[in-house]
Amino acid sequence: MFKVILKLLLCDGFLGDVQKIKFCQWCGGTTKHDIPDGEERLRAICTTCGKIAYQNPKMVVGCLIEHDNKVLLCKRKIEPSYGLWTLPAGYLEIGESAMEGAIRETREEANADVEVISPFVQLDIPLIGQTYIIFLAKLKKPHFSPGPESSECKLFSLDEIPFSSLSFSSMVVTLNLYVEDMKAGRKPKFHYGTINKRPGTSPSDIDAFTLEDHMQS
Amino acid sequence: MFKVILKLLLCDGFLGDVQKIKFCQWCGGTTKHDIPDGEERLRAICTTCGKIAYQNPKMVVGCLIEHDNKVLLCKRKIEPSYGLWTLPAGYLEIGESAMEGAIRETREEANADVEVISPFVQLDIPLIGQTYIIFLAKLKKPHFSPGPESSECKLFSLDEIPFSSLSFSSMVVTLNLYVEDMKAGRKPKFHYGTINKRPGTSPSDIDAFTLEDHMQS
Repeated sequence: MFKVILKLLLCDGFLGDVQKIKFCQWCGGTTKHDIPDGEERLRAICTTCGKIAYQNPKMVVGCLIEHDNKVLLCKRKIEPSYGLWTLPAGYLEIGESAMEGAIRETREEANADVEVISPFVQLDIPLIGQTYIIFLAKLKKPHFSPGPESSECKLFSLDEIPFSSLSFSSMVVTLNLYVEDMKAGRKPKFHYGTINKRPGTSPSDIDAFTLEDHMQS
Repeated sequence: MFKVILKLLLCDGFLGDVQKIKFCQWCGGTTKHDIPDGEERLRAICTTCGKIAYQNPKMVVGCLIEHDNKVLLCKRKIEPSYGLWTLPAGYLEIGESAMEGAIRETREEANADVEVISPFVQLDIPLIGQTYIIFLAKLKKPHFSPGPESSECKLFSLDEIPFSSLSFSSMVVTLNLYVEDMKAGRKPKFHYGTINKRPGTSPSDIDAFTLEDHMQS
């Protein structure tokens, strides 16, 4: 059923909003929406210069910071999910590695200077074209404070993590996997999984999903 | 030195070609190139509707297929790197998970139906805004043949892998890590790393890079 809905959304050009691309960003020509020769997907193609405006999923990169058997969370001061807790994370930019992006986002959102320990999780969310890549990290100095997008930054022990007040399904899954690894006495391994969100649910409907294809390395 | 060059390229708007975005793809207005309030990067901003055309790195997903102690490689029938060997891989599309994308690319390039075993490597290439995500996989049936973008598909034992005729630095690194893991008798673990390419080198200059921030989980 989920696959059928996804296919319908793709055929309608809903995902990635291909139908909303009405002009060529390079030459200003109008676009047509068609499946190019040799491809299978609807694309926005310029009727003047012929260029195709490809759209691809975006990476969100962040850090799960361990300090004194606690983890650092930030309370969001911006929408979506205003007032809910999250790991410091944000969109990867061109010109930086995922690790560099995760360190930058942590500096921006928690004024914290961190050293990355290891990659921890990759979570794809096909419905919204996002992939979360979260690293385990530690504080270089025991200092942190809210950046412009956070109202509060706080260390939580594993039993205190506010699971019912987390901001995104990706954060629920990441923190659940981490707590499971730690409580089992395992050195955290790398996890991969797909979050299938129920279409039409908001980012803060943190229970409206299933985790599929979960694998560990 | 590398960081300095990268910063210059970013300031010039070379990376991601932000200067080439001259029109708004949603309303057709002309763009200006400026650093928006609260941001640090040059963006293309529509002078009519105000929307920002964000550009982000793209994910390339693929499979390292193990079969009878051999790995499956495809000889490229398209540019870049025409005639050189690669793992089946390509851009992740909106609406699919990285695992689904890797399986699709393998079907397209090697007519092979595979089952993914585990995530194997993430390699970021900041200079060209790409992240490679490669999974270990196995053939569901022992059948494969070249798809439209390949001239040949062939199984290679570890000692036969044509390292001097590989197509991309990401493939050199992936196969080197795999061979090292296998020869050490290790079950392959997940690797993360950054490929820093020397600016101005072509995709097929497979020696013009260094691997940095290599971590295993």
